[in-house]
Amino acid sequence: MTDTFVVIGGDAAGMSAASKARRENPDLEIVAFEKGDWVSYAACGMPYYVKGDVESLDDLVQVTPDAFRTERDIDLRTNHEVVDVDPDAQTVTVSTGNDRFEQPYDQLLIATGARAIEPPFTGMDLEGVFTIHDLDHADAIQTYVSETDPETAAIVGGGYVGIEMAEALASRGLDVHLFEMLPHVLQPFGESVATVVEDHLREQGVELHLDTPVAGFGGEEAVSSVELDSATIPADVVVVGVGVEPNVELAADAGIEIGETGAIAIDEYGRTNYESVFAAGDCAEATNVVTGDADHVPLALTANRAGRAIGQTVTGTPTDVGEIAGTAIVKAFDVGAARTGIIDEERARDAGFDPVSVEITAPSRAHYYPGTQELTVTLVADRESERVLGASVVGGEGAKRIDTVATALHAGLTVTEVETLDLAYAPPFSPVWDPIATAAKVLAGSLKKTA
Amino acid sequence: MTDTFVVIGGDAAGMSAASKARRENPDLEIVAFEKGDWVSYAACGMPYYVKGDVESLDDLVQVTPDAFRTERDIDLRTNHEVVDVDPDAQTVTVSTGNDRFEQPYDQLLIATGARAIEPPFTGMDLEGVFTIHDLDHADAIQTYVSETDPETAAIVGGGYVGIEMAEALASRGLDVHLFEMLPHVLQPFGESVATVVEDHLREQGVELHLDTPVAGFGGEEAVSSVELDSATIPADVVVVGVGVEPNVELAADAGIEIGETGAIAIDEYGRTNYESVFAAGDCAEATNVVTGDADHVPLALTANRAGRAIGQTVTGTPTDVGEIAGTAIVKAFDVGAARTGIIDEERARDAGFDPVSVEITAPSRAHYYPGTQELTVTLVADRESERVLGASVVGGEGAKRIDTVATALHAGLTVTEVETLDLAYAPPFSPVWDPIATAAKVLAGSLKKTA
Repeated sequence: MTDTFVVIGGDAAGMSAASKARRENPDLEIVAFEKGDWVSYAACGMPYYVKGDVESLDDLVQVTPDAFRTERDIDLRTNHEVVDVDPDAQTVTVSTGNDRFEQPYDQLLIATGARAIEPPFTGMDLEGVFTIHDLDHADAIQTYVSETDPETAAIVGGGYVGIEMAEALASRGLDVHLFEMLPHVLQPFGESVATVVEDHLREQGVELHLDTPVAGFGGEEAVSSVELDSATIPADVVVVGVGVEPNVELAADAGIEIGETGAIAIDEYGRTNYESVFAAGDCAEATNVVTGDADHVPLALTANRAGRAIGQTVTGTPTDVGEIAGTAIVKAFDVGAARTGIIDEERARDAGFDPVSVEITAPSRAHYYPGTQELTVTLVADRESERVLGASVVGGEGAKRIDTVATALHAGLTVTEVETLDLAYAPPFSPVWDPIATAAKVLAGSLKKTA
Repeated sequence: MTDTFVVIGGDAAGMSAASKARRENPDLEIVAFEKGDWVSYAACGMPYYVKGDVESLDDLVQVTPDAFRTERDIDLRTNHEVVDVDPDAQTVTVSTGNDRFEQPYDQLLIATGARAIEPPFTGMDLEGVFTIHDLDHADAIQTYVSETDPETAAIVGGGYVGIEMAEALASRGLDVHLFEMLPHVLQPFGESVATVVEDHLREQGVELHLDTPVAGFGGEEAVSSVELDSATIPADVVVVGVGVEPNVELAADAGIEIGETGAIAIDEYGRTNYESVFAAGDCAEATNVVTGDADHVPLALTANRAGRAIGQTVTGTPTDVGEIAGTAIVKAFDVGAARTGIIDEERARDAGFDPVSVEITAPSRAHYYPGTQELTVTLVADRESERVLGASVVGGEGAKRIDTVATALHAGLTVTEVETLDLAYAPPFSPVWDPIATAAKVLAGSLKKTA
């Protein structure tokens, strides 16, 4: 009898696992249930569709449902919602709307993803108020903007979705107001990044409202304003991007363990507390490479990587899902911002470190080379072990340099080891000392002084 | 009595050491002898001066002689050539042209650099035939091109100096011929880089003559042609860039040990076989981080870093000069090419490895994001240990990604460890799987198959 591998969720983690399992085992029966229409899509591309840089939503689909079925022999069922998991009987219950059926499995992957948080704002159901988490949302925003030709947009939330949507809507000629309840945008990137990005957003004409909680939205049928505690700001379209929460209800109802982060707890192979049930992607935890603790950073690479590893594990080659450094990068108009590891000093202390940090600015290229931009690098290390804990990079080019630190985090390098890396130099690409190495040099000096 | 630290050579290694020693010890007597006029200059910027991107040679000088003297209290003497070193007496003999004197030292740094190789071509002394290694050369080329308005340039040597000068002179409107005796340009970068760069050079109108040894140059007073074995090619100006050789004669004459590479042998602190004599920069060896053997890769960062470390060591804080990965990057018109570690399979075998490599192409950004360029990554690993040995990257953007591999080399990461790095992803910066991780993924698969 052939084994059956059932996948719940047809996006990055789920379809990576299904595809990898198929490549490893041509005989396995693989059934994937997706409750919506879209599978295997690049959610991160949505702001660029709204902006107009990406012509069609189909461009964001990596592999079509048909290709999964015909080329990869995966029994992919869209508009099929799994409504119940019975880990003891090893079955899932599937609803097609009118119909329900049971599907047995030998191994199961829960890849139910996350959803946009819908805060309890008044007026969330007004026309023209959107969250953005799947392609239908992107389509709806794009259609609304095209059809109603709004003059003013309000973005609620200064995370990367908020900032990317600010760029997208400003590029379409809207006056953009961005509301953030915290003192700074891009909270996980730290203050040095935030101040550079905020200055740049203002230069680009985005009106920033920091430290500004939103109470709700006003309007008759369609939204016409953002309501603050003490003011009303006109807005013809609103995008709420205040974060995501993992879809864990199905798992929790089935007795699958949820971790402290609120996402599904897994071991190094992505296995839950049930031997034959795995979880991956935005609904699952991952191990932070710096702290060694469970963490929840729902990002595309983590989902793809874990899915792929689980595809190998369920076909007989136990494969680690890998650790995460929380590496992230975001474009805000002409500035790139990136972060990795533990930047927040309080969080570092909670994890048992004694954090020391430096912030430096350095040119992205040789100072005399045309087009040189200023880069700001913040580097954080543990005082005693001198191990690098995290970093941020922000500037007009070169934010991808964060990868050097991400690699250092995975390898557990010290500040001095990063300082003496043989990084690539030529005038069009870098100063002699790469800004990452310069930050390490300054931090090493500062560690010595305080030793 | 105050100790005296004498430095021979006023460029990257020498002046980094002098400056660092001064910061660490305000009382040390520091004397630096430079046989020419220029100190502390960015030789790598010269092609961009010839091209016209850098306005003045002074822009390439990091710190002026006066600033070293007044701001850093370094007794810097330009046009002072050290002609003899006596390590037993701890003195150097200095010539100023007319005059000679002896200078005692407690600790000595030999940072005599390298010189452009002058091959035994006929006609090397014709007007209009240049090598390029210091700012005087750049000045001479720039002046000659401006004054004689040449139509055709010949570059001899397809290393990075040759390629940068090809770009510089083509940008000034000259027809450029590039001659390389080997089958490919950029030999240390490997064939996959070379073919991409060669195609691009041809697209840009550079006439490539590969596998083509040059016999010499023809002309009356001024050069007018390049002589090949079987043809004569017109050339109004010639730049010979066939590599550099370390200036070790002074050291060798003094009984200082020269390594197998032909450069000065040093220990991990940059110390020669004489306790009080150090060597750094283009005249000295360095330890290759992959092979653990002495290597000679004369590049700016190595010189700066070693100089700085020696500045600390001579002032009482023994500091490792660091290892090198042979990381290099070069711009060829609109293409960037980079390399690190051991790429050449024969060299890998000589070092005791069993090399396996893959070459992949991947987009530099999300495939649907505007401006995406194709990147070609070659990754080499040892079959048994699965340790990464080296890599190259070439493409329209993103060659700096080589730093991820350089960092991995310093950390001794395996292919699977590189595959599971948490590298930065957002559509404007990278595909979900960074091309480096993709190369590692493919190489890991290939290692498994052959295991």
